[in-house]
Amino acid sequence: MPDLLSVAEAEALIAKHMPAFGAEQVAFDTADGRILRQDVFAERDQPAFDRVMMDGIGVRWCDPLPAGFALAGAQMAGMARAKLVSPDACLEVTTGAIVPAGCDCIIPVEQTRRDGDFYRLAEGYRPAKGQFIHAQGSDVRGGARVLEAGVRLGPPEVALLAANGIGRVEVAVRPSIGVLATGDELIDVDAPLSEGHVRRSNEYAIAAALSGLGPVALDHVPDDLDATIQALSAMLAAHDAVIVSGGVSMGQRDFVAEALAALKVEWVFHRVAQRPGRPMGFGVAPGDKSVFALPGNPVSSMVCAVRYARPALLAAMGLKAAAPEWVCLDADVATAPALTCFVPVLVRQDETGRSMARPVISTTSGDFSTLAQAHGVVQLPTGEARVPAGTVAALWRW
Amino acid sequence: MPDLLSVAEAEALIAKHMPAFGAEQVAFDTADGRILRQDVFAERDQPAFDRVMMDGIGVRWCDPLPAGFALAGAQMAGMARAKLVSPDACLEVTTGAIVPAGCDCIIPVEQTRRDGDFYRLAEGYRPAKGQFIHAQGSDVRGGARVLEAGVRLGPPEVALLAANGIGRVEVAVRPSIGVLATGDELIDVDAPLSEGHVRRSNEYAIAAALSGLGPVALDHVPDDLDATIQALSAMLAAHDAVIVSGGVSMGQRDFVAEALAALKVEWVFHRVAQRPGRPMGFGVAPGDKSVFALPGNPVSSMVCAVRYARPALLAAMGLKAAAPEWVCLDADVATAPALTCFVPVLVRQDETGRSMARPVISTTSGDFSTLAQAHGVVQLPTGEARVPAGTVAALWRW
Repeated sequence: MPDLLSVAEAEALIAKHMPAFGAEQVAFDTADGRILRQDVFAERDQPAFDRVMMDGIGVRWCDPLPAGFALAGAQMAGMARAKLVSPDACLEVTTGAIVPAGCDCIIPVEQTRRDGDFYRLAEGYRPAKGQFIHAQGSDVRGGARVLEAGVRLGPPEVALLAANGIGRVEVAVRPSIGVLATGDELIDVDAPLSEGHVRRSNEYAIAAALSGLGPVALDHVPDDLDATIQALSAMLAAHDAVIVSGGVSMGQRDFVAEALAALKVEWVFHRVAQRPGRPMGFGVAPGDKSVFALPGNPVSSMVCAVRYARPALLAAMGLKAAAPEWVCLDADVATAPALTCFVPVLVRQDETGRSMARPVISTTSGDFSTLAQAHGVVQLPTGEARVPAGTVAALWRW
Repeated sequence: MPDLLSVAEAEALIAKHMPAFGAEQVAFDTADGRILRQDVFAERDQPAFDRVMMDGIGVRWCDPLPAGFALAGAQMAGMARAKLVSPDACLEVTTGAIVPAGCDCIIPVEQTRRDGDFYRLAEGYRPAKGQFIHAQGSDVRGGARVLEAGVRLGPPEVALLAANGIGRVEVAVRPSIGVLATGDELIDVDAPLSEGHVRRSNEYAIAAALSGLGPVALDHVPDDLDATIQALSAMLAAHDAVIVSGGVSMGQRDFVAEALAALKVEWVFHRVAQRPGRPMGFGVAPGDKSVFALPGNPVSSMVCAVRYARPALLAAMGLKAAAPEWVCLDADVATAPALTCFVPVLVRQDETGRSMARPVISTTSGDFSTLAQAHGVVQLPTGEARVPAGTVAALWRW
């Protein structure tokens, strides 16, 4: 099949033809899971001041220390900097407070005994100079970059935005995604069962696989050219990217290619040297809308959604590509040497922390009950009729 | 520290005292990410009928086959079962159609040549009996359990609900979670900077770590007993679970314990033999509301949120406990032998698919810029002053 694109070629062509999605400002506390589109710099030193790390008293260190200290005031968290005026005196301090001027040693409250306005140290306690002081700027210097554009924001990143005064943050716009399922045989989840029909399900799996990226709208058309043109046209008008499930082969009831042509969608490619998913196509519609045309078989559509569509959409949103997740096959797998084969796998870790992948099906006929037993799909190396157990392969999770 | 609970004891006590959250019915296409609270059974055989796997023609197999077949009709996907009446005839078939009565062999269109109303086979093509027929019930038998209560629904599971006619599905109610930060030193993200103050950030990290479970509401109080009682009381009235960040030590400005006592929250425990996070407490308020009292230090609060609060809330929602994620330390780590130590780590896979964890800080003073370099936190084994590189430890991701 020399005319078929390789997986890597298909991937590169998609990357080349995807539009770059825009950015928008959102409130930082709604930004969890979004893709950062700006660098973030430390607003000031972190800690912003020499910071007390324990509740207790602050003193000026010397050797030997006096056995006790006269209480001269307090330095609580949130207060402006107080000053210790005498080496025989101390200030009560709380965790998070500024270290008072003149103090260079924090003595935990457990190591003291208060006697009126006098603090004595515990018997034999020998504090060190500088102890329990978290030095200004020791974590981060003011102005240092603390987050780089292209990361996906999670709990620590959202907290970092807050800590550095980034009330509104530039993140990738969430692309609007349309998913169109085709097929006369498809009926709704609540339709009465009837001979020859199956319930619509593919598009819900695709929608769930892409739902973390942006809003997903679904539609379904029968195998009819006019209906397909009309539905696709509406989807292209309404969405940034369109995924079509089914109807992409060359059969007499496959109208997707004809409908795309009628709508002036330019194929970037159609058919890839892979199994499953060989009929997959990718095109660009007027207005720079991406169209992923996926085969209608459950495994095929899931493979194409998680291997091509999701990474391409994330990259177009500005996500910096992460290293793939690697897993080690725990069984031999028969493949078609001329094709890149994808196999659903169940992933478990062995006692050394290695991810072991068990193939859960050996044919491409798997339905969703099979896929629900798998965590994702591995891409097998090409060229051998049998990929041996122990092979390390890249995993795409559902 | 014989009076301190171990991590395992603390975990078991939390599990014992968590309420069981309820279940509710939701539309299946909004159920992605929810925790399933019912078993799901196959509505019928899958495939529901002997199913055509290729576009082409359906014939009755014999040996030798005739060189050609008279076209006697069509069996398209979605049509009721047609019948092949003669071994010299064929029916056009499309992928997904019922295999017509009388057919037991599907010949792909690429292996045929159509000549008027007559189909000839490609030169030398020898089809096998039964080929390209996906047999009824070969994936799943009707009535078989396809999903078990306690799983988290992802793309294949949502598609399975659709495929089996489960239009509304029973899932765990999303618990309402309140997060209360305490501290005089805390100011808002958009407040002017001032001496001794730091911006509120912990609670946003906690909220993001729990946001996949249910709605999270935030509040902040200064170090004041009455204000703390009032805010906690409002949170307990409004939410299923409350997380308090800060104010849980025994210092003179730590009012959380006193406020909880005033609100008749019963401590299940207070203090755990761990670092960081030793002051952590867990209690139950009237009305069976859970209260997690976490230290205010960023690492402590994140460790306690992802190691205790999130798993406990998920278990209370009915999620079946998964195996921990294991990682292999790639450097020695110094620990406190009497305590269970948690260390933030950056996780990378080696060329064998093994997850290697690099400790990113060695003290408990880390701020969120350090935590943003880590993927989560590992729980180190107890009892040795130094945990060597190569040790396999459980990881909790942020």
